[in-house]
Amino acid sequence: MNREILISGIRPTGELHLGNYYGAMKNILELQEKYNSYFFISDIHSLTTHPKPDDLTRNVLEIAKDYLAAGLDPNKSTFYVQSSIAEEICELHTYLSMVMPLGDLLRCPTFKEKAKKQPDNVNYGLVGYPVLMAADILIHKGKFVPVGEDQLVHLEIARTIVRRFNQLYGDIFPEPRPIMENAVRIPSLSGKGKMSKSDNADSYISMKDDNETIQRKVKKAYSDPTRIYKHQAGNPSKEGCNVYHLHTYFTEKEMLEKIQLQCSNATIGCVQCKSILSDSINSIVEPFRERREKLSDSYVYDVLAHGRMKAKESSQKVISEVRKAIGLRMF
Amino acid sequence: MNREILISGIRPTGELHLGNYYGAMKNILELQEKYNSYFFISDIHSLTTHPKPDDLTRNVLEIAKDYLAAGLDPNKSTFYVQSSIAEEICELHTYLSMVMPLGDLLRCPTFKEKAKKQPDNVNYGLVGYPVLMAADILIHKGKFVPVGEDQLVHLEIARTIVRRFNQLYGDIFPEPRPIMENAVRIPSLSGKGKMSKSDNADSYISMKDDNETIQRKVKKAYSDPTRIYKHQAGNPSKEGCNVYHLHTYFTEKEMLEKIQLQCSNATIGCVQCKSILSDSINSIVEPFRERREKLSDSYVYDVLAHGRMKAKESSQKVISEVRKAIGLRMF
Ligand code: SF4
Ligand code: SF4
Repeated sequence: MNREILISGIRPTGELHLGNYYGAMKNILELQEKYNSYFFISDIHSLTTHPKPDDLTRNVLEIAKDYLAAGLDPNKSTFYVQSSIAEEICELHTYLSMVMPLGDLLRCPTFKEKAKKQPDNVNYGLVGYPVLMAADILIHKGKFVPVGEDQLVHLEIARTIVRRFNQLYGDIFPEPRPIMENAVRIPSLSGKGKMSKSDNADSYISMKDDNETIQRKVKKAYSDPTRIYKHQAGNPSKEGCNVYHLHTYFTEKEMLEKIQLQCSNATIGCVQCKSILSDSINSIVEPFRERREKLSDSYVYDVLAHGRMKAKESSQKVISEVRKAIGLRMF
Repeated sequence: MNREILISGIRPTGELHLGNYYGAMKNILELQEKYNSYFFISDIHSLTTHPKPDDLTRNVLEIAKDYLAAGLDPNKSTFYVQSSIAEEICELHTYLSMVMPLGDLLRCPTFKEKAKKQPDNVNYGLVGYPVLMAADILIHKGKFVPVGEDQLVHLEIARTIVRRFNQLYGDIFPEPRPIMENAVRIPSLSGKGKMSKSDNADSYISMKDDNETIQRKVKKAYSDPTRIYKHQAGNPSKEGCNVYHLHTYFTEKEMLEKIQLQCSNATIGCVQCKSILSDSINSIVEPFRERREKLSDSYVYDVLAHGRMKAKESSQKVISEVRKAIGLRMF
């Protein structure tokens, strides 16, 4: 098994919704087949916003369950919690901080944005986020990192760090390269932008919603407002109707074509069409929910302990090499 | 043994000179009796200036020998190399960085000064120096820190960090307090300011100088320029003659009084006076040199390994407590 090493972080930000689930699931299922993947839950990163200790502990467990239920296979990949190799990551982070120009970090657009959002909490760790991220990647000598558009600048910083570090201490790290994520932008039920938890609760489907809740939310979903009566022909396209747009992600091809035809010739009403969408969505959410409910806490602990062991093995090897290169003899 | 915990860092900056030796020795001999002291060689801090790996390794060993020869007793104190508990220090450093306001660090006068001195190397680690220093102290829950005037601002930052951390996560750390160091300012042989390695080599006494070298350097030392002939009365005071000033540190009281008398009544010449000073200085440097030469590498390794063990025990206890308080459950 000589696959390339890939590193990907997962934020422990509470409850998944259908939008991020769908995108993440698609990416993970693909990546874990192609790469020697390290997926980690980034609990240390989340400390910049000072979560309550109990919330943090619980969120880590919950998100681990989410990803296992979504299909992350801990036998194919290394699945671990960032803090379970905190010693190695933070040590590397400190060494990397000695070669990373401060100016580049201060100019980083994501830093500027966050500093604007939380002006009372512009802490040293916040500006160092990309340095810690570089440590996450380099602690396993990661070669590939799946990133969204907004993370590209962070990866560029990691590459800068690698170049400067290697120049000083020899050819230790590969320059990590981005894999652009299939950015799946599931639209909001409200028709406004993409599905997001920061909208009102009825505009997104939580992966915890039961069938009834899904039916209720989809019934209220925004569709083509110009189609008032069933006998009017509709405009079943991504642009013409938000409900149709949602169908394109969740409804099977055959049914999708049928809806398109029937809406165009006014033989299906919006109420019925939405009910079909509910079923499509439920057929994704329900099995996820069932798989998730079967995951006991103790099983998840075992999985993460196993992941920790694998991650430790890799990270300890790298940190030893780094110390030696820097000239830190372990007395 | 319920003495208060004191933390003190030692920079691995190469060769000691008489000026820093004399001050450090006095302080350490006193502190190790009164406190439960942790003395560490700060090799990680020194990385901000990117020392050559081989130099760094060697400097750590050399400075350890210096301090052992100077009288640091590894049975009375915990004497270790910073990087030998790198995991715990760097992990704590990362957590502390999440609560430390960036603005305070950027405004820190020592940072501004360093940034001016090395404008090409203003790295993220440089601005974080006081955060790493706070981790050095707090990793053992240090209560006291011997500081010079210029370090007071760093200790103030450590105290800020403690207050913010404790406010978020409970009463974990004590606020460390300064012990003002007896700032011994040995004057330069050149008469210009204090003894320093950044002056020319003949203006300071290296702790490696042999008797002959000491004689030669002291012979050239700056004395009262207005006293040209032996039959002139001199002005044997700290202000009046640099050589006399040096005598006050190194020459015994009885002899000192004799010199003062004889210089005042013109019965001693400057050549003879300097020769006495050479002997006084040599009586400090020579036994140091002899003690130092007897310290084998392997003995020093053993001492540092023992120190590491003691430091690990303390640091692991603290980092476990910190993780728990933050909500980082070790999966
Ligand atoms: S039938 Fe469906 S696709 Fe057509 S307008 Fe109504 S909701 Fe949209
Ligand atoms: S005799 Fe000694 S103290 Fe007096 S002026 Fe000469 S060097 Fe100075």
